[in-house]
Amino acid sequence: MISTKLTELLGIEHPVISAPMGSVSGGRLTTAVTRAGGLGLVGVSYGDPAFIDEHVGQAAQAGGVWGVGCVMFTFDERPGLWDKVLGYAPPVVALSFGDPDQVRRYVASAAESGAHVVVQVHDPEQAAVALQAGASVLVAQGAEAGGHHKTQATLPLIPAVLDITQGVVPVVAAGGFADGRGLAAALALGADGVMMGTRFAVTEESLGTPGFKSSLVSGATADLVDTRAFDVVRGIPWDEVYQARSVSNDFTRTWTGRDAELAARRAEIEPEWAAAVARDDTSRRALFAGEVLDLVHDIRPAGSVVRETVAEAESILRGLAGRITP
Amino acid sequence: MISTKLTELLGIEHPVISAPMGSVSGGRLTTAVTRAGGLGLVGVSYGDPAFIDEHVGQAAQAGGVWGVGCVMFTFDERPGLWDKVLGYAPPVVALSFGDPDQVRRYVASAAESGAHVVVQVHDPEQAAVALQAGASVLVAQGAEAGGHHKTQATLPLIPAVLDITQGVVPVVAAGGFADGRGLAAALALGADGVMMGTRFAVTEESLGTPGFKSSLVSGATADLVDTRAFDVVRGIPWDEVYQARSVSNDFTRTWTGRDAELAARRAEIEPEWAAAVARDDTSRRALFAGEVLDLVHDIRPAGSVVRETVAEAESILRGLAGRITP
Repeated sequence: MISTKLTELLGIEHPVISAPMGSVSGGRLTTAVTRAGGLGLVGVSYGDPAFIDEHVGQAAQAGGVWGVGCVMFTFDERPGLWDKVLGYAPPVVALSFGDPDQVRRYVASAAESGAHVVVQVHDPEQAAVALQAGASVLVAQGAEAGGHHKTQATLPLIPAVLDITQGVVPVVAAGGFADGRGLAAALALGADGVMMGTRFAVTEESLGTPGFKSSLVSGATADLVDTRAFDVVRGIPWDEVYQARSVSNDFTRTWTGRDAELAARRAEIEPEWAAAVARDDTSRRALFAGEVLDLVHDIRPAGSVVRETVAEAESILRGLAGRITP
Repeated sequence: MISTKLTELLGIEHPVISAPMGSVSGGRLTTAVTRAGGLGLVGVSYGDPAFIDEHVGQAAQAGGVWGVGCVMFTFDERPGLWDKVLGYAPPVVALSFGDPDQVRRYVASAAESGAHVVVQVHDPEQAAVALQAGASVLVAQGAEAGGHHKTQATLPLIPAVLDITQGVVPVVAAGGFADGRGLAAALALGADGVMMGTRFAVTEESLGTPGFKSSLVSGATADLVDTRAFDVVRGIPWDEVYQARSVSNDFTRTWTGRDAELAARRAEIEPEWAAAVARDDTSRRALFAGEVLDLVHDIRPAGSVVRETVAEAESILRGLAGRITP
């Protein structure tokens, strides 16, 4: 076991968090990660009420140290949804993608509910805002992450964020991690744990469709593309500073970089696209994945991902200490 | 001291290499890094004969384990220059930016001279080519690097390259490293050392101008931009897959993304630009720097960078091993 400020604060065994991925991180994945000693997070994302009742409900019933992940800017538009989430009394609330005002409001509200509040940041400026807002944990997510991300890479971002937090709160590294080598590196940088997305998306318990999982298992990092096409076709008002990384397919090849045209023709294109997604058509659907695709080659049980990641990191760190001579 | 496959192969004390940066890594910086127990590399880059005689000459005279770094594609156009470099019998030759044919030819020729041959790669495909060509060391450089770089980030790139090399040759991590936290993380990922550019560019011994060094010391990672403007204005035929990262200034703000127009107006713009560079005008000159700017705050002696980086990494790795419980 590796003890860090994160494991101590949350009372978990291992400094490993499963990212709250929309349509991927349901109750089953969350519970599997939490039972293995990590922190499982349900991907509430944009907040569908039925999804919340089913999956947050399932995680709440299983108990332990679990949490929910919410995309702040979309909650502002849907009153009632936030209270619905907090109604399940999640021990951890993870917040991402909000402006400074939203960060302050949602951190205060989540903290009032008694939850530990995790805020995801993408640069040192956002880290300072989250720290001041009273976040109990920061997740510093680098540009290697799958799905939505900003531009600064994880490796230099983590020390830069740590220079700001100065040990006041635990900092979790995200973006580019898929195994024990990554966890060992994150701890060496000074982080208190890792959050992994892609690696947990490709597990038995993930809600990802068969087409999604097999595309990620067979895909390579070189196949990835940054795109806004999936946001535009869905009509989700993402700030343009956040691109989304996906395995490239016919849809990204056709529409990436043509945001205005896609937005204008949305009424015509969206129904067809949504039907293709419903068929699990991998040539059209979003295949969000991080730059770790070259490191992910199989579908595994989530609990074994947690255990093997920690065991590998421990073995690496013991070995390195043994290579130091006076 | 931390012993790795790299230190053993080259017979150096510390797994730390100074990047061969053009107009920055001269004889003095190289010698300072080598004397401190790392590997210093002269930045021969595009190959100016007078620069070679002065700086490679200086490093050769100082002796120890030193080397030269050459940009392959530019050497093809200038016969005689390669033999001039090898004439100084560098113990290490570092090669970067060549197509597979160039990699094979320059690796063979450098190896024949008796040098250890280091090849820089930017993705797993290039790693396989360099390995097959007979490189003795690979430098896996991620997109965080300053100056010219490709798109894959260091953190997931290192394990992916290690999965290809399988321990046959040492792998050095580059891009995003500036201190002992970075070295500890690189070793945790499985790399055998780090190459640092920006951190060594901002040292007393670097050839960087006062304007360049102070721009890097005062700059932040958020101020960086990827650009081809400096390549286009100089008329250097860089492959478009390699962008160059610089602190943004008036010149990058004016010309980034307008390659064709800048190329067409080069005869008019280049002399004025070159005159500004000669005056050390930081609003116009290239200010190549990596994503570590948030971690670099002072101008130090290069030897102390080597020693402090290693000491910090040792302390981190010892501390982490102590936090593992059965």
